[in-house]
Order: sequence, then structure tokens, then C-alpha cells
Amino acid sequence: MKKHIIGVDIGGTHTKVALLDLSGHIIHKTDFPTKNYKKEELIEAVSLAVTGIAKKKKIQKRDILGLGIGLPGLVDFKKGLVFCLTNVPGWKNVALKKILESKIGLPVFVDNDVKVMAIGELRFGAGKGRKNIICLTLGTGVGGAVIINGDLYRGSSLVAGEIGHISINEDGPACNCGSSGCLEAYVGKEYFLNNARKKLRSASGAAVMKMAKGDISLITPELLREAAIKGDRLSMEIWQEMGAHIGNALAGVVNLLNPQLIVIGGGMAGAGEILFGSIKKAVGEKSMRIPGRAVKIVRAKLGNDAALIGAAEIVKDRLGGA
Amino acid sequence: MKKHIIGVDIGGTHTKVALLDLSGHIIHKTDFPTKNYKKEELIEAVSLAVTGIAKKKKIQKRDILGLGIGLPGLVDFKKGLVFCLTNVPGWKNVALKKILESKIGLPVFVDNDVKVMAIGELRFGAGKGRKNIICLTLGTGVGGAVIINGDLYRGSSLVAGEIGHISINEDGPACNCGSSGCLEAYVGKEYFLNNARKKLRSASGAAVMKMAKGDISLITPELLREAAIKGDRLSMEIWQEMGAHIGNALAGVVNLLNPQLIVIGGGMAGAGEILFGSIKKAVGEKSMRIPGRAVKIVRAKLGNDAALIGAAEIVKDRLGGA
Repeated sequence: MKKHIIGVDIGGTHTKVALLDLSGHIIHKTDFPTKNYKKEELIEAVSLAVTGIAKKKKIQKRDILGLGIGLPGLVDFKKGLVFCLTNVPGWKNVALKKILESKIGLPVFVDNDVKVMAIGELRFGAGKGRKNIICLTLGTGVGGAVIINGDLYRGSSLVAGEIGHISINEDGPACNCGSSGCLEAYVGKEYFLNNARKKLRSASGAAVMKMAKGDISLITPELLREAAIKGDRLSMEIWQEMGAHIGNALAGVVNLLNPQLIVIGGGMAGAGEILFGSIKKAVGEKSMRIPGRAVKIVRAKLGNDAALIGAAEIVKDRLGGA
Repeated sequence: MKKHIIGVDIGGTHTKVALLDLSGHIIHKTDFPTKNYKKEELIEAVSLAVTGIAKKKKIQKRDILGLGIGLPGLVDFKKGLVFCLTNVPGWKNVALKKILESKIGLPVFVDNDVKVMAIGELRFGAGKGRKNIICLTLGTGVGGAVIINGDLYRGSSLVAGEIGHISINEDGPACNCGSSGCLEAYVGKEYFLNNARKKLRSASGAAVMKMAKGDISLITPELLREAAIKGDRLSMEIWQEMGAHIGNALAGVVNLLNPQLIVIGGGMAGAGEILFGSIKKAVGEKSMRIPGRAVKIVRAKLGNDAALIGAAEIVKDRLGGA
């Protein structure tokens, strides 16, 4: 029986490739910057990484079940087609499954990165044992996935889960998607930083500005987090506002879907309690009593490995090889 | 084999009781005003109506599979418990199943009225053959139901579907549910009429005011509909605004759940094209391209009978008697 799977997580900044066993444990992983490569080069780099890991770990290709890939964009997971990638230019209607299968000689499956992350968290992380779960990722974009009755819910054109594009204000700011007032237009990384910089410009004496040596372009989520933890009032306010926007959007999702659990991951979720406290407060205030009390809001447990682990899982699912 | 079912639809204004065959056809129905009766009296009236219909149609009780009831409120459909009814006072934690079963001597099942309406539309109405459907009812309140993979999705505490309590503006008007900016706080009947009256007071020469003989308290959704059809600009605007609010909320649901179909029913849906056109326009503008193109928005097909038919279906489902 084949005992290994390759998981690949192509992100806006880093691409990770890992060798896993059938129980979702990572045996070895490697990564490289996504932006250094054009599309064909990136596919080649993934292929080389797979060969490299196999060699290093002395694994034969015939012992590998297949390759699962999570990508940040719209994907036809059935056909293995990438429609487009958010924040990675040059990817449009790429038959990634076909290309990689002929390169590597292994079965390849592709899916949206938030969806595979949700599968990872459902089976091995914060969602273990739960059936109705909402996953949210906070990063450059705001991603989402919906687990219904223990299964990923894909919707009728396979694109369900876009929590980031629920509008929280009818006349809110323009969003990249073409609509206005979307959650992402408040809390996506660039929107978030623009808003923070605006606040910092019109304030004075914020500790975070000292930490950035007075250079507003050096303000990052990490710095704002650090400053908030140190008690910088404005930095705290910035995170609290972000949490309130997220909580207001999630309250609607809670009323609509009455989930047991909301799992929040992604780089911006690293802000921790200052952010999560505000999210929980808003959900508590804005959702209806019964569904509001039923839902737990937690941080993703598998951290940066969730998508790698979930990507390996889709190989098992599709090949029935568990 | 038992060949008949009783369907009951307890509404804020009318209670309907019908005899149906196993194929969802209504053989006979009767109704009476809900508000004339206190809780015990209403239960008694339902019981009498069932006996009356059976007698009239010369059906023996032993030929009736059971009784299905849809109610406008929070219900534990498993235990047959009514937690509370919206807009019908005096109902709190009523063991309706138990009470009626001992009165009538037939199996009784209760469920939320929008949920049974959704089942009716799914199996015999606009949703036939579809798998992922959102149902919305526009009336005193704004109700909703979610059909996932051909089944009613109930959520982890059985209260999923509250589309009316998705907030469309973070600082919007206060809603009965305790939150603010909820869809219902814009388009629930009383909110809608208050807003319409406000507009009419600050305008002059609106044709609808002449139709109401200058008495603003006589303004109703029906009158506003009539005036809009006749081309009264302000009445048209009022419906278009309502449609935009509904469409803005639905766009978020479309992005989140990527449904094939949205079915809209309830008294206020009677406004027809002037309302539906605006809803479709807003969903088209505000939802993402792929899920936006995938969804059809239609009016409920079974009209006022949807809940009766769906209520009869839950009896079949629970008894496996189809």
C-alpha cells in the first residue's frame, strides 16, 4: 500500500511543498518564494521540490499516493483547472492537474487554499468532531469555507464560501470584487493598513509610530500587534475596529447558518486576543440569542500547515486511499 | 395504507387547515383568523377543524397518516415544542405535539413555517429538481430557509435560516432582534410602512396619497403596489429601495452559499416585478461574477399553500409513509 502523500500550498508570498504520511503528519517540508517565479517556472519548481524531497527521504514515486495542491484563487477542483489566482499574476485558466501529472507521473488534485485549510482544520485541527463549521482566513484577502454536516460545502458552481465578500455597509468603500462595503474592503491587509495609516496621520504620539521610527510606510500588522500588546491606545483601537467589522459580518453568518464553530486563521489572525476579543464581542451583541450562544469562535490550530495537511487529504478523498 | 394527511399553517393573521393526499394535493381546506383565539382556544380550533374536515370528506381518522403544522416562530421540531411565536402573543414553550396528539389521537409534527414552506417549494414548487436553494419570505417579519444538497439545513441548534437578521449596515436602524441594520429592520412590513409614510409626509402630490384619500394611515403595501403599477414615482421608488436592500443582503448570501435558486414568497412578494426587478438588479451588481450568474431569483410558486403542503410533507418524512 502507498504510504505517502505530497501536499503543496501555493501562497501569495511562499510556496510550500511537504511529504506527509497517511495520518496527516508532515515528514518533511520545504518552501520557496512564489514571486520569484513565473507560472511555468513555479510549476517546474514544485515538480523539482517533489523530486528533491522524495530523493532526500529515500521514497520511491510508486510509494506516493499523489499530490494535493491548495491555491489562493478560483479553482475547478473536479477538472483540476485554475481559473485565476488572487495576488499571483499570470495564472488564467491553467490546466494545472494535467500539466503536473505529465511532469511528475503522479495523480494530482488541486483545490482552493482556504477550502483545503478548512479540511485540514476539520479533520486534524480546531474543527475535529464538529459538523457545522465556518472557516475564515485573514490575510491579503479574506477567504472563507463552509463545512456542512461534516463535509466541505462547495455550492452550485463550486465557489461557495466567500465570506470576505459579504457587504457590511450598503454604501461602504469599494471592494476589489466590484461591490462595495465588503468585509474584505475593511479588513483585507492593504485596506486595513491604509485605514491604520490614515488614523496614524491624523493622530499624534501613537507609540507605534515611534516603533516605526516615524516612517508610516514601515507600519505593518505585526508592528501594530506589538504596539497594541504594549498598550498603545490607537493600535488597540485599530485592532478592535477590525474585530468589530469581522464580528458584524460573522453575526449575519451565525444567524443564517447556526454553526457550532468558527475557525479563524491566516496571517492577520496572529493579532491574537486583542482581535479575537473584539470579534467575539460583536458576534455576541449582533447575533440572535440561540445561534449566538451555540457558536464558539477559535483560532485555527494547525497554523501555517493547515493547507498543506488539507491538500494531502484531498488526495486521499479523491483516490479513496485512506 | 393511509392515504391522507392534515396540513396546518398557523400564521400571524390566519390559520389554515387542509386535508391533502400523499402527493401534496389539497383536497379540502378551511381557515379562521388566528387573532380571535387565545393559545388554548387556537389549539382547540385546529382540533375541531380537523374533525370537521374529516367528517365533511367522509374520511376516518385511521385513514389519516398524521398532522403537520407550520408556525411562525422558533420550534424544536424533534420534540414538537414551540419556544415562541413571532407576532402571536401567549405562546411560550408550548408542547404542541403532545397536546394535540392527546386531543386528536393522530401523530403530530410541528416545524417553523418558513422551513415547511421551503420543503413545499422544493418538492412541488419553484425549487423542483434543484439542490441548493435559499428561501426568503417577506411579510411582517423576514423569514428564511436554506436547502443544501436537496435537504433542509437546520444548523446546530435547529435555528438556521434567519436571512432577515443579516445586517446590511453596521449602524443601521435598531431591529426587534436586538441588533441593528438587519434586513428585517428595513423591509419587514411595519418598518417598510413607516419608511414609506415618512417619505410620503415629506413629499407632495404622490398619487398613492390620493388613492388613500389623503389618510396616511390607510397606506398599505397593496395600495403602494397598485400606485407603483399606475406609475406613481414615489411608490415605485419605495419598492425599488426595498428591492435594493433585499438584493444587497442576498448578494452576500449568494457569495457565501453559491445557490442555484432563490425563492421569494410571503405577502410582500406580491408586489411583483417592480420589487423583483430591483432585487435582481442589486444581486447582479453586488454579487461576484460566477455565483451571481449561477443564481436564479424567482417568486414562490405555491403561493399561500406552500406551508400547508410542506407541513403535510414533514408528516411523510417523519413517519416514512410516502
